[in-house]
Amino acid sequence: MESPPQINFGILGCADIARKVSRAIALSPNATLHAVGSRTYEKAAKFARENGFPDTAKIYGSYDAVLDDPQVDAVYVPLPTSLHIKWAVLAAQKKKHLLLEKPVALNVGELDVILEACETSGVQIMDSTMWMHHPRTAKMKDFLLDNSLFGELKSVHSCFTFAANKDFLENDIRVKPDLDALGALGDVGWYCIRSILWAASFDLPKSVLALPGTVFNSSGVILACGAYLQWEDGKTATFHCSFLANLTMDLTVVGTNGTLRLHDFIIPFEEKKGSFSTAVKSGFTELVTGWNPKPSEHTVMTDLPQEALMVSEFSRLVGSIKFDGAKPEKKWPTLSRKTQLVLDAVKASIERGYETVEVTG
Amino acid sequence: MESPPQINFGILGCADIARKVSRAIALSPNATLHAVGSRTYEKAAKFARENGFPDTAKIYGSYDAVLDDPQVDAVYVPLPTSLHIKWAVLAAQKKKHLLLEKPVALNVGELDVILEACETSGVQIMDSTMWMHHPRTAKMKDFLLDNSLFGELKSVHSCFTFAANKDFLENDIRVKPDLDALGALGDVGWYCIRSILWAASFDLPKSVLALPGTVFNSSGVILACGAYLQWEDGKTATFHCSFLANLTMDLTVVGTNGTLRLHDFIIPFEEKKGSFSTAVKSGFTELVTGWNPKPSEHTVMTDLPQEALMVSEFSRLVGSIKFDGAKPEKKWPTLSRKTQLVLDAVKASIERGYETVEVTG
Repeated sequence: MESPPQINFGILGCADIARKVSRAIALSPNATLHAVGSRTYEKAAKFARENGFPDTAKIYGSYDAVLDDPQVDAVYVPLPTSLHIKWAVLAAQKKKHLLLEKPVALNVGELDVILEACETSGVQIMDSTMWMHHPRTAKMKDFLLDNSLFGELKSVHSCFTFAANKDFLENDIRVKPDLDALGALGDVGWYCIRSILWAASFDLPKSVLALPGTVFNSSGVILACGAYLQWEDGKTATFHCSFLANLTMDLTVVGTNGTLRLHDFIIPFEEKKGSFSTAVKSGFTELVTGWNPKPSEHTVMTDLPQEALMVSEFSRLVGSIKFDGAKPEKKWPTLSRKTQLVLDAVKASIERGYETVEVTG
Repeated sequence: MESPPQINFGILGCADIARKVSRAIALSPNATLHAVGSRTYEKAAKFARENGFPDTAKIYGSYDAVLDDPQVDAVYVPLPTSLHIKWAVLAAQKKKHLLLEKPVALNVGELDVILEACETSGVQIMDSTMWMHHPRTAKMKDFLLDNSLFGELKSVHSCFTFAANKDFLENDIRVKPDLDALGALGDVGWYCIRSILWAASFDLPKSVLALPGTVFNSSGVILACGAYLQWEDGKTATFHCSFLANLTMDLTVVGTNGTLRLHDFIIPFEEKKGSFSTAVKSGFTELVTGWNPKPSEHTVMTDLPQEALMVSEFSRLVGSIKFDGAKPEKKWPTLSRKTQLVLDAVKASIERGYETVEVTG
């Protein structure tokens, strides 16, 4: 079988998450680990050595050098969020397609600058929200879209927490106001918001109310928060995100006819399979002493892990542009922007003392 | 084996739920179906015939006649909530111990009148929240109380919804302002609030904020609502309850070290066993491509269904009073009252336009 056309990736920086994405690029049939750049050559070389880069890969002592490599088609940007606007815009200007870590920007204003640069240069942008690409996600969407099974969406609850250790809470970029100023909201909250929007077919809520009691660190960065979202048609959602509680990853979507539920929506419990539960027209047995029908479990297998499927889909889009003259796929920047809009509204609600904030696109 | 001393039950009214509780009384080793009263003799006779009452059982054409039967030790009261104050107080005055359907009262003021009558007469009162008596509930509590497994409670989410049909939405007592004026909040919301308080070891929240967007019927009865609870120590909870969405019954309790989760907390999927999931110090595999450890499932078997265990525990307490001169157990009225207090605060928050309401005992 002929090997598909390859998209050459350059990686900006040696963040922990870049190890996982490097492996995903290596696993992806249409992507190649071509270059890595760090602030020092030594760090980049060490990263390449430890993360399966081929011997022919380029090692650079700066991010600029990666962007100046004419063989680099696309860059993966796992830099702190505050640096996204600089490096994402520069990458776009240098015609590099962009796989951008989440949260994509500090706010939708910065994101719009990035998106405009991408639009101007005709490059693809996609945020690195891996679970969107698991085949389980598509199966779950089939369920939600089947009116006889699920009916009309009424409520969503999403929860993503993990128990950060002392070192994380003191030193991680996600607790530093100059690096990832959105803290837990930008990190774990991003996934909650994305999952809610996904369940709502990316229909934006009309309003967002942050729930009082946000936990901040001494620098004012959010460590835990939650919010309530309302739509014009009456559906509602809540989420809770935190760095301060045991790793929990729940998504529950309730419709008039059905319920969808899973407890590992962002990272499946196992790499090669993902499960979820559905319930349809649930009811009770005679005398209400049990359920009939009960919820049922579904398992979806995948040969490639979700992050490799993400890289592969991104590379397919980049390949269409590069080899077939296609236009960038608008879906992905649109989803990034909607997620950021809601995230901004939650932040605004917190800053305004838990006022209800209208969401306007 | 000698049969334990029997507590003679009288049932006030022939509500649907009374069928389940009649069976529970019949199953309970220390309780006897002694009498049933309805507004007509014929209805009561039909109910007794269809629900396993012994031939010797007394059939009465009024509730008063049940209360006047000197052989009745205890009454089960499944009447509409608006009638609780009248019949519960009268029952207590006639020295009948009280198994009272939830919601126990329209508000804590009415409940206090009932509790005072019970106190004055020295009778036991217990609300009919069946899941509290499942052995699974005790097992789950063991987990929550084990600091090395669960740690400190950080957040709870509880959801109880069911899809009421057209007939229910038009005719059920739970949508009638003169009967069960608390609607979904009193019916399904009661369980959500109880489960949150249970998880919080019945530590009352400092404040309650109802979430905007309560759905009312044309008579102003709540069909769907939600709320956010906050404690002094920073823990938080959300719940969602509704008559308008597929039957869903979720409880998720997240601590610093562990997570507890179940999807059938009020009515177990199967009558004789109940499962729940726990996770302790959950983490990810290398490169964050899976979980280690993963949550684990636990199953608790029970010979008697939870409602029979409830009747049995209630009868045991009544027996201690009747045969051994013990005092009524204060735990149960205390839990009823705390649940009602929070329920009242949610209702007040809705009525005040979604203001935060302080909870005061």
